Amino acid sequence: MKRNYDIDEINSLKSEINHMDPVDLAESFDEMSVKEIMLRFKLLDKDLAADTFAEMDRDKKREIIERFSDDDVEELITELDEDELVDTLQELPANMVRRVMDEFVVGDRRKVINRLLGYPKDSVGSIMTVEFLSAKAGSNCETVLKRVIASDLDADKLEQIWVTDKSLVLLGYVYLADILRSPDKTMEDILEPLPGSIEATDDQEIVAKIAYRYDLSEIPVTDSEGRLLGIVPVEDAIDIMHEEYEEDLSNIHGVQDTSDEDYLERSCFAIAKDRTTWLIICLITATMTGFIIQRYESLLASSVALAAYIPMLMDSGGNAGTQSSTTVIRALYTGKVHFKNIFAVMSKELKVGLITGSILVVVNFIRMTIIGAHGLSISLTVSATLLLTVTLSKIIGGILPLIADKVHVDPTVMAGPIITTLVDTFALLIYFEVATHLINL
Amino acid sequence: MKRNYDIDEINSLKSEINHMDPVDLAESFDEMSVKEIMLRFKLLDKDLAADTFAEMDRDKKREIIERFSDDDVEELITELDEDELVDTLQELPANMVRRVMDEFVVGDRRKVINRLLGYPKDSVGSIMTVEFLSAKAGSNCETVLKRVIASDLDADKLEQIWVTDKSLVLLGYVYLADILRSPDKTMEDILEPLPGSIEATDDQEIVAKIAYRYDLSEIPVTDSEGRLLGIVPVEDAIDIMHEEYEEDLSNIHGVQDTSDEDYLERSCFAIAKDRTTWLIICLITATMTGFIIQRYESLLASSVALAAYIPMLMDSGGNAGTQSSTTVIRALYTGKVHFKNIFAVMSKELKVGLITGSILVVVNFIRMTIIGAHGLSISLTVSATLLLTVTLSKIIGGILPLIADKVHVDPTVMAGPIITTLVDTFALLIYFEVATHLINL
Repeated sequence: MKRNYDIDEINSLKSEINHMDPVDLAESFDEMSVKEIMLRFKLLDKDLAADTFAEMDRDKKREIIERFSDDDVEELITELDEDELVDTLQELPANMVRRVMDEFVVGDRRKVINRLLGYPKDSVGSIMTVEFLSAKAGSNCETVLKRVIASDLDADKLEQIWVTDKSLVLLGYVYLADILRSPDKTMEDILEPLPGSIEATDDQEIVAKIAYRYDLSEIPVTDSEGRLLGIVPVEDAIDIMHEEYEEDLSNIHGVQDTSDEDYLERSCFAIAKDRTTWLIICLITATMTGFIIQRYESLLASSVALAAYIPMLMDSGGNAGTQSSTTVIRALYTGKVHFKNIFAVMSKELKVGLITGSILVVVNFIRMTIIGAHGLSISLTVSATLLLTVTLSKIIGGILPLIADKVHVDPTVMAGPIITTLVDTFALLIYFEVATHLINL
Repeated sequence: MKRNYDIDEINSLKSEINHMDPVDLAESFDEMSVKEIMLRFKLLDKDLAADTFAEMDRDKKREIIERFSDDDVEELITELDEDELVDTLQELPANMVRRVMDEFVVGDRRKVINRLLGYPKDSVGSIMTVEFLSAKAGSNCETVLKRVIASDLDADKLEQIWVTDKSLVLLGYVYLADILRSPDKTMEDILEPLPGSIEATDDQEIVAKIAYRYDLSEIPVTDSEGRLLGIVPVEDAIDIMHEEYEEDLSNIHGVQDTSDEDYLERSCFAIAKDRTTWLIICLITATMTGFIIQRYESLLASSVALAAYIPMLMDSGGNAGTQSSTTVIRALYTGKVHFKNIFAVMSKELKVGLITGSILVVVNFIRMTIIGAHGLSISLTVSATLLLTVTLSKIIGGILPLIADKVHVDPTVMAGPIITTLVDTFALLIYFEVATHLINL
């Protein structure tokens, strides 16, 4: 559908969109035709246009770059911050990356961008910004103040000035307000020390951990020698934490990470594709439980009542195991537990398992007595199995994440199907073995 | 164990701890006797002592306040930021709160603290800081700069200067660096607009959402009229996001929130207590599945082979349902789905369920053919049940979180036991009904 605007409408549209936040603007573009979006880009201030572009999804970014004139693309690319440009380039197809790099990124900027593009995906280096101001420890505050005033960095990059020694090794930072308030001092005098810095080759997950632990508002990134390379603002740490959270949920429940796209807008086939692999894995692992039940078919045939308690026993085991793994994964994440504590974890989960298991046995015994459907031998079999299963599940759930972490597998990947399969298998084996002995008494 | 230090040791200890981060210091205090801690407090700079105290856990805080002299407590309390003091007071027993408020918090500060203590727990008001600098829109940059230089606020509270109109309604903010670079302009000229602000009575969860959506480094808090009351720095938003994340995990897996305490240090009874309630709920709801299996006991006795597929069918249903609920909960959280989309969600999950269900049926049919243990009628029964269960589970998993959100129940609370119980019940009913018809053919 084509729409024509008169001059008043254009003016009011211009004023409206120039007062919007780039995030909201980019979201409103989701529903618009490229024509409508291009009109709005012409009306936006250059700064705001670049920020909005950076927030758009990858398909829209590609369309914009394809349809814009060379001059317009150049203006846009020039206005993007280095880290925004790197993000964008990572989302574009190879031929478009070449066009953008060859035609619109020149001189020093090209060197910086190429260096940033060289860091592995999901590394700190690939998300850091290289826009910061640093000063030597001995510099006079007044001199630094002059550099701030003359700087063409955005103001939000000038809240903290980074302080290095003569060989550019990072020492700490100084707040702009402190520089203002003590013009006669040197950087060294008012230096704020760093609780920790991270290296550009580290996994980006560490940004969220450091920001969470030390409440930093900017996290400095160095090379292996401690020389300052860039900064990750805490706003980005929040995004990373959110990503990691989504990733954990995905691992635990077998849903692929689709944070880029809207659930309602994705095709059913795409969603089904994301989910099927995990369901197939679970289905195949369930073969194990089928085998065990088949093996004990004659026992089951002689005492069909046993079947009624299989779901309850498996669920209780699974839940007990997941509780332990969730707790241990959290403790791993915050650094309160390590592989070396594996025996402490085992002994703790053994005790917790015996306590909760005993309580469950009592509750279940009361429940079975009230319902009163089956005899004492079945009640005893179910009780014994419940206690053993819950205890064993707690131990398995407690130590598997530690082992996963030790062998550098994401513990949340293990938390799902592996624990369930192990626990289900053990629960059934215990159940039928106990039944064989108790019922044939 | 008592230890004596000579003067050199004291000096080197002093220098060592005064170069540490408050977070690390507070953590190292966990293992120390109160005597050792008190010695270190005497050696710490006042600022660092207060920051470290704010990071300590509640029991240690109580001990310190009990054992310190009045003068020392007064010094500590005076150095705490208002939000740190409020946090501390919320952790102390009532008699200690009275003592601290009556003796060491005076004048204007007492008014502020009482107002902050009046906000409900988990509200934005209870975590915001009231340390900020604001200026009227018409103020000249040079005048504001003088106020910054004269201000006794910590430098990290002066990175953004907040701009209000004449009735103190918040309009936006200005970066300190921009004020420096344009001394002749007014606040209004260089104003950065706000994408959104939050009210002091809002739930703190909204801080994390706003910070995530708009990448803000400070989130302003207003009253219902839009007048500026306080600020929440994004570092705190990270803490809140982490808390919410833990809460979600706890709800889904029935583990109580114990982020305050270390897993390894908690007593087994405390851990068992946290976990038992949820396990009992799951056990009781499993009664339902037991009933159904009992009702079809004669069918099961005549065809024991059916039992072998019960775990697989229930697991597949449960997993399929959890996948959908996880996806919908995430979409709810980011505001991409609402209750009004319930029919769209149903239709989407119906289609996704049919697709994934069909694939699983094929995989399972191959699996059963390879193993070849049972006849065609059982293969058909299992296949039909698998398709129906997966589809129904997807729909249930998709709409339950929407309903929970609509009736203001946390959707993650519903994601666990309720979905599992519903799905298990349906899976068994479908299985036995299909079997009754197919096997008796």
